[in-house]
Amino acid sequence: MATPLDADFALELDRADALARFREEFVIGDADAIYLDGNSLGRLPRRCVDRMRDVVERQWGGRLIRAWADDWFDAPRRIGAKIARLLGATADEVIVADSTSVNLFKLVIAALKARPGRSRVVTDDLNFPSDLYVLRGALELAGDRALKVVRSEDGVNAPLAAMADEIDERTALVTLSHTAFKSGYVHDLAAMTALAHRSGALMLWDLSHSVGAMPLALDEAGVDLAVGCTYKYLNGGPGAPAFLYVRRGLQESLPNPVRGWFGQRGPFDFALEYDPAPGIARFLTGTPPTLSLAAIEPAVDLLLEAGLDRLRQKSVRQTEYLIGLWEALLRPRGFSLNSPRDPVRRGSHVSFGHRDGWRIDQALIGDMRVLPDFRHPDNIRFGVAPVYTSFAEIHEAVTRLVRVMDERRYEKYPMGRAAVT
Amino acid sequence: MATPLDADFALELDRADALARFREEFVIGDADAIYLDGNSLGRLPRRCVDRMRDVVERQWGGRLIRAWADDWFDAPRRIGAKIARLLGATADEVIVADSTSVNLFKLVIAALKARPGRSRVVTDDLNFPSDLYVLRGALELAGDRALKVVRSEDGVNAPLAAMADEIDERTALVTLSHTAFKSGYVHDLAAMTALAHRSGALMLWDLSHSVGAMPLALDEAGVDLAVGCTYKYLNGGPGAPAFLYVRRGLQESLPNPVRGWFGQRGPFDFALEYDPAPGIARFLTGTPPTLSLAAIEPAVDLLLEAGLDRLRQKSVRQTEYLIGLWEALLRPRGFSLNSPRDPVRRGSHVSFGHRDGWRIDQALIGDMRVLPDFRHPDNIRFGVAPVYTSFAEIHEAVTRLVRVMDERRYEKYPMGRAAVT
Repeated sequence: MATPLDADFALELDRADALARFREEFVIGDADAIYLDGNSLGRLPRRCVDRMRDVVERQWGGRLIRAWADDWFDAPRRIGAKIARLLGATADEVIVADSTSVNLFKLVIAALKARPGRSRVVTDDLNFPSDLYVLRGALELAGDRALKVVRSEDGVNAPLAAMADEIDERTALVTLSHTAFKSGYVHDLAAMTALAHRSGALMLWDLSHSVGAMPLALDEAGVDLAVGCTYKYLNGGPGAPAFLYVRRGLQESLPNPVRGWFGQRGPFDFALEYDPAPGIARFLTGTPPTLSLAAIEPAVDLLLEAGLDRLRQKSVRQTEYLIGLWEALLRPRGFSLNSPRDPVRRGSHVSFGHRDGWRIDQALIGDMRVLPDFRHPDNIRFGVAPVYTSFAEIHEAVTRLVRVMDERRYEKYPMGRAAVT
Repeated sequence: MATPLDADFALELDRADALARFREEFVIGDADAIYLDGNSLGRLPRRCVDRMRDVVERQWGGRLIRAWADDWFDAPRRIGAKIARLLGATADEVIVADSTSVNLFKLVIAALKARPGRSRVVTDDLNFPSDLYVLRGALELAGDRALKVVRSEDGVNAPLAAMADEIDERTALVTLSHTAFKSGYVHDLAAMTALAHRSGALMLWDLSHSVGAMPLALDEAGVDLAVGCTYKYLNGGPGAPAFLYVRRGLQESLPNPVRGWFGQRGPFDFALEYDPAPGIARFLTGTPPTLSLAAIEPAVDLLLEAGLDRLRQKSVRQTEYLIGLWEALLRPRGFSLNSPRDPVRRGSHVSFGHRDGWRIDQALIGDMRVLPDFRHPDNIRFGVAPVYTSFAEIHEAVTRLVRVMDERRYEKYPMGRAAVT
């Protein structure tokens, strides 16, 4: 019997893994490279290769304008309805549109209009920085609202109590990243939403680093608004358009501040006066980028086949396994664990800190063909995508990282900041 | 020698056409169908087929996250610089981002901030209705500005004098569609821009129905702001991301109201405070839809090879030819010309009105394999895309339209409104 530190142990885990066959569904171009950045850009599903050839060559090339009626007009709603199943939402609460930033902007402005007498918006410093930029910009436009950014204890965890102290009857909106991009901390979605509602505030979640890696229950928790990204664990392709969720009961009362023609009741009536579409469609804006949109659908279908409960179970076992290897092999070599120990509060990526983190990351990529990513100032993120990451890859990645340290391979790389990955 | 009404005359014109070889650069799946809707969705360039396979299969599938540094980060700026050559702008004045609606929203809000004491925005009723929706939404947010929609005489032409009467020192912004989506009327870009500037207003053009079909001279005219679409005459693919132009001297003083991370100075520093990127890059927002973005580049390269002066000359000859056929064959059958007679004031599409327009359009598509498009209430638009439309196609389309009328084929189609095309 192999011990937990042996490569054979990882192979046994893979053999026992009911989801292992899904790896075959993805293009694995370079079998020796270890890709642990699916939390940043998910792999290409094989069935997406055929879909994209069909969309470009048959639909655009052959059907031309007729493809709008065949397939394209319905795509934002049809794919949104599939994503709704990943969110614990109903089909008519989710639609695919624009980028996460633009969707966040639209929903923040809409939320502020819906809570006119209230002077504050509350978030925390684990939120994705871009969300804070968008928020401040939206608040400047909407006027007379202050942004409170609650400080996390340690950059890793965000206790509910600190948020509870700041949410009161002055609060129009609470908005957070459900899983923190750096530490992987996962907020208690139901408890935080209840906290916001207790003060009469609206709750808006950014689900970018959660969706596809764990089940979510937006309807059950009574979440008001959400946005999220489709190119991470959803494997929808680089910069694929984002989704947005608006609770059914709120849809008719929230205005979309960016009134593009796809959110109009009859876009081809060409009436001079704007009349918003019924339901979730009013949150569409301009013409959707159809090629990028089409790539999302086969990827979401795959996740629905694998099942989120099983994916989450595997993700937790994989991050636990990784943390076990850290404890035995990386902690003694100066790495800190910058992610929560409690798996309930941890997403599907694990961050390790090291004062030489940047150089180590470069050596992993350059010498060892391991692709994690790096987050300023010292975090190396190992993303587990349970639909295609194997236990053997996790073991091999740590083994190669140990070689980088023991052979001091990172010393030949310049100190410096992350530029790209 | 063939007379102008003969099919042979069209073939002679095609034989003499220096641009005829460019038709070979496009996928023509169905040689019997006549596609006259390139003003709505341009054809698929052959070289785009290879590009899309490369982007999906090699870049996403094989290079994964590394493709961002290889190629993808630079794409909005690189393709923007190529589009700048189509606009008479310099490379650092144009960038590809979001949809036309979102870009219009961003620039309208920015323009209003730059003209704080002024209470009005002026446009006309030939503008694309969606632009009016976006404008009204932006004005509601920015507060205390009135929108003046100048009425065109006849739904076809928009004389400068009517606009001149409305533009004064109260005017913050003048914004128009350069080529009207319905009639094809082309505003005098330089004269209108000068008119706006005379009163100290900013000038914003929507170039969606112009770009790629005629040369433009934004820098020479001193245009402040512009947006436009890449999927019509640019042939960038369905819903391909749009472009925006900001005059070099204005860039540093205009804030982007939607502060996504791609418009941040160091997007991968993950600083909590927003610091806009220098130059045109600050008008980026979220992660661009890379697959849809990539499709634009080979298409723009093709137009640059063909040359805009030559394309415009051919477009004018083709719309003149089409109007000649209307005069001889369609006017006697009850069609009105709903486009300007003066080619200087006419874009690359021609609208014909008929009280049975909707049924005639359906018969053309259903019985005759001619694909124009229809615009409420009675306009059939024939779009000429000079890079691939032949004179023979124009002749054949009119011949088939004559058959629809003489054989009364439209009578079997239901009366009713445009739903889709």
